[in-house]
Amino acid sequence: MLMGYTVPLSPQGRSELTPAPPWHYSCDCIAIEYWADPLAVAALLPPGLAPDESSHGRAFFWFIDWQFTGSNDEVTDPARYQYREALVLIEARLDGRQVNHCPYCFVNNDAAITRCWIQGYPAKLGNIFQTRSFAAPSLAAAPIVRGSRFGASISAHGERMATARIQLEEKIDDARSVFSRPTTMRRYFPNLAASRREGPAVDELVLSLMDDLLFTDVWAGSAELALPVVAGEDMHMIAPLRVGRGYRFGMAYSVTDLPVLKNYIA
Amino acid sequence: MLMGYTVPLSPQGRSELTPAPPWHYSCDCIAIEYWADPLAVAALLPPGLAPDESSHGRAFFWFIDWQFTGSNDEVTDPARYQYREALVLIEARLDGRQVNHCPYCFVNNDAAITRCWIQGYPAKLGNIFQTRSFAAPSLAAAPIVRGSRFGASISAHGERMATARIQLEEKIDDARSVFSRPTTMRRYFPNLAASRREGPAVDELVLSLMDDLLFTDVWAGSAELALPVVAGEDMHMIAPLRVGRGYRFGMAYSVTDLPVLKNYIA
Amino acid sequence: MLMGYTVPLSPQGRSELTPAPPWHYSCDCIAIEYWADPLAVAALLPPGLAPDESSHGRAFFWFIDWQFTGSNDEVTDPARYQYREALVLIEARLDGRQVNHCPYCFVNNDAAITRCWIQGYPAKLGNIFQTRSFAAPSLAAAPIVRGSRFGASISAHGERMATARIQLEEKIDDARSVFSRPTTMRRYFPNLAASRREGPAVDELVLSLMDDLLFTDVWAGSAELALPVVAGEDMHMIAPLRVGRGYRFGMAYSVTDLPVLKNYIA
Amino acid sequence: MLMGYTVPLSPQGRSELTPAPPWHYSCDCIAIEYWADPLAVAALLPPGLAPDESSHGRAFFWFIDWQFTGSNDEVTDPARYQYREALVLIEARLDGRQVNHCPYCFVNNDAAITRCWIQGYPAKLGNIFQTRSFAAPSLAAAPIVRGSRFGASISAHGERMATARIQLEEKIDDARSVFSRPTTMRRYFPNLAASRREGPAVDELVLSLMDDLLFTDVWAGSAELALPVVAGEDMHMIAPLRVGRGYRFGMAYSVTDLPVLKNYIA
Repeated sequence: MLMGYTVPLSPQGRSELTPAPPWHYSCDCIAIEYWADPLAVAALLPPGLAPDESSHGRAFFWFIDWQFTGSNDEVTDPARYQYREALVLIEARLDGRQVNHCPYCFVNNDAAITRCWIQGYPAKLGNIFQTRSFAAPSLAAAPIVRGSRFGASISAHGERMATARIQLEEKIDDARSVFSRPTTMRRYFPNLAASRREGPAVDELVLSLMDDLLFTDVWAGSAELALPVVAGEDMHMIAPLRVGRGYRFGMAYSVTDLPVLKNYIA
Repeated sequence: MLMGYTVPLSPQGRSELTPAPPWHYSCDCIAIEYWADPLAVAALLPPGLAPDESSHGRAFFWFIDWQFTGSNDEVTDPARYQYREALVLIEARLDGRQVNHCPYCFVNNDAAITRCWIQGYPAKLGNIFQTRSFAAPSLAAAPIVRGSRFGASISAHGERMATARIQLEEKIDDARSVFSRPTTMRRYFPNLAASRREGPAVDELVLSLMDDLLFTDVWAGSAELALPVVAGEDMHMIAPLRVGRGYRFGMAYSVTDLPVLKNYIA
Repeated sequence: MLMGYTVPLSPQGRSELTPAPPWHYSCDCIAIEYWADPLAVAALLPPGLAPDESSHGRAFFWFIDWQFTGSNDEVTDPARYQYREALVLIEARLDGRQVNHCPYCFVNNDAAITRCWIQGYPAKLGNIFQTRSFAAPSLAAAPIVRGSRFGASISAHGERMATARIQLEEKIDDARSVFSRPTTMRRYFPNLAASRREGPAVDELVLSLMDDLLFTDVWAGSAELALPVVAGEDMHMIAPLRVGRGYRFGMAYSVTDLPVLKNYIA
Repeated sequence: MLMGYTVPLSPQGRSELTPAPPWHYSCDCIAIEYWADPLAVAALLPPGLAPDESSHGRAFFWFIDWQFTGSNDEVTDPARYQYREALVLIEARLDGRQVNHCPYCFVNNDAAITRCWIQGYPAKLGNIFQTRSFAAPSLAAAPIVRGSRFGASISAHGERMATARIQLEEKIDDARSVFSRPTTMRRYFPNLAASRREGPAVDELVLSLMDDLLFTDVWAGSAELALPVVAGEDMHMIAPLRVGRGYRFGMAYSVTDLPVLKNYIA
């Protein structure tokens, strides 16, 4: 009997790229509020999502240092399960409700690519870095205090896709005053058989459900963000026209479910 | 209108991980014939494939240096589209017909992971190397002549998964005397929605169709192959009990279709 | 006028691999006490260092997540200056004084390789991982509390060189009760000119000087450590015969000087 | 007795980053002729080299796929010894003689970084790609024929440092009609000891000596080359003002010696 939540399937089930849920996460985040061309943002929305006119092209660019564990002590196998991510969340409306949608995503790990695609995050492979905050004090420690400065970057295929910096100014008591929109993603798996080429095998709008979602040490401050024009890519179409606040915080949640909002395959 | 054969979809369609077929390939290959435990081989077969009793656990371990192009000059963008692969093909029978099946596969590039999963090759990320044959003669050239020696290796998550060496002995006139079995793969895309957890969204047995398949400079010789035991993996269950001939050759083909042999989702 | 502390030198001095000291560091460390074959340890000592008979082959294997800054805001450029390291410190005596010596070292970054070679750490390139402790609580957070478990690994050229796990048991008040030996290294730069081939251009025993050295959150606990046999390498000659305590802590210091203890070139 | 041509030294001598000469190489090269700002080129020359007024800022940007072997079958260990390089050669005069000098260099392998620094090539770590020519014909094969197109790129720390394309037009009978200048490099190893900070430990102008130098399949054609401005780097100061011919060829040689032309340490 072949076992595994993902390929490769095997009798022992140990080769699977990622185990089945529940998936547990803790992370450090740098999230930068900005405004892109509202028309470019609107052009990225899948069917059923409408532009959020009140957002005027508002989006957040995230850099995330993740630690993942499942049910098999994955937290002690960082070579396989620790990873980094960068993604964009653009604001939209779903049946009038304020939501986010994720049109671009990068990770540096194959177990993460797999979980991303299963959830509808359109992950490509990249190299992501963010300044970390270390406990032992020095000029290199980047402590979580007013004035502390953090940098972050994402590169894919040797091209710098985004570069950011933030400088902490004030602690935020309630993260949900900033991060309150649920996130929608598009689960998508293509067909290749010539007889089925008119569309994908899987095409759904899904909702990110985060169990036990926690934020810690949420700080806000000034920010810089650049999304340079890159040949062969188009994420720069939603480059910042204006940059808002930057946020640095810890976050944790688990994943056990992924509600399907719309099935685009009739 | 959102465009793209794969995610990320976008109005310009330039961010897609890989373009739509046709897909064109040229490559250099090292393929090593060996025999694993027939029971371990049989245990890897998906429903509808039966062990090939006459094979006695025969398999081929492949190392491939690939160059890909689509319809947009991808051959001149090697940072995105040149890559390396390692995979195992185990022998089996499909309705009495002699076929191969691919239970394990590794690539070092995200466009390749995507094309692999779409085709049912169960690709994970790895670092693959093989000795190349260079035109300018020196002790480092590894020319395609009798006595020439080639090495190859695949590592994933920092663990050596396979190491091989071959020494060329004789030219082979007809590659199809060695490589004559069509290859079957299992297209597989999991579900995450709690309401659908009993099985995957896509689960099909498919057939690799290679248009304009060509072999060049096919040489055979002695070989060594080791698949060490790796904690957290299980490919070593089909480690070699006996190693046969090694082959080094060039290969080219195109992909435009992927016939579906069986749909495992009732 | 060409500028730079290291190559590449240039008029603007911006291409240098690493800036000149002062160098400032904060890091997270996992250090595992173990005992190797005392003869194998002794065989690694450079001239002027004697085995520490009272150590019986005692050594520490370190995994370090580093953040570096110089005088130019490097802390906000993690793509260039954040990195990871693994190294071994073996115990020895220098003129009767208890010291450590570093015979093996791996980093994942070129600025770090450069600073290592300048200081006499014999760095090779590797992929290093250690479980991180995240602030937001979840099963994946690895908090700094009793019972918390951490894993670490180092791989080079696709071969796993060392794997470790620790489980925290108790807080240690004074790190210097554990880490009290100064570290010696061997600065070494080869010659290539045929006329000078009898020896290197630089060959010195040097002392690591750590300004403002601080330890934080020092915990001790049980540990596992394995250094597998790797073809083409020899670090496994000092593989553990017995594993002692594991330690997890933060550390910070600056580097401004590197006293030369011995010059091996007459 | 500690053995090794480079660190790490050990009793068995197997951990050394690279073995001692002789070093044997075969490679595939893409070299692009271009003209930079002559003042920027002149500003990169070390003492004793003068600008070549007749060159008007002429330089060649090289992309090289290397295979290395020493005396221990390294050619069959591509995971350690196969690598890629990108470098610039600028034209200069040494005592009136026409030479090249190498101010910038990138490799993707630590054994290569080591051999580079020993020889005075100022190597940093990078990701380098070039279109390869494959034997099996397809649209992806990039054959060595008129009209064939090749791309190449070098990225370091996630920033694209150079991108190039060439289209083959004509075979060149004598490579030395194009590549006739010997190359000079600057061997440089810094000091760190505060007592010695006024200058490096090693600082020499050396000459690249290539034993048994061979060129094969030399083709010339049209070319494109871009060196974008990159924050934190300065190689773009010698970006192309005008691009000349591109060349694609095989090359081989061995290294056994490195004559020292000047010693900059009085």
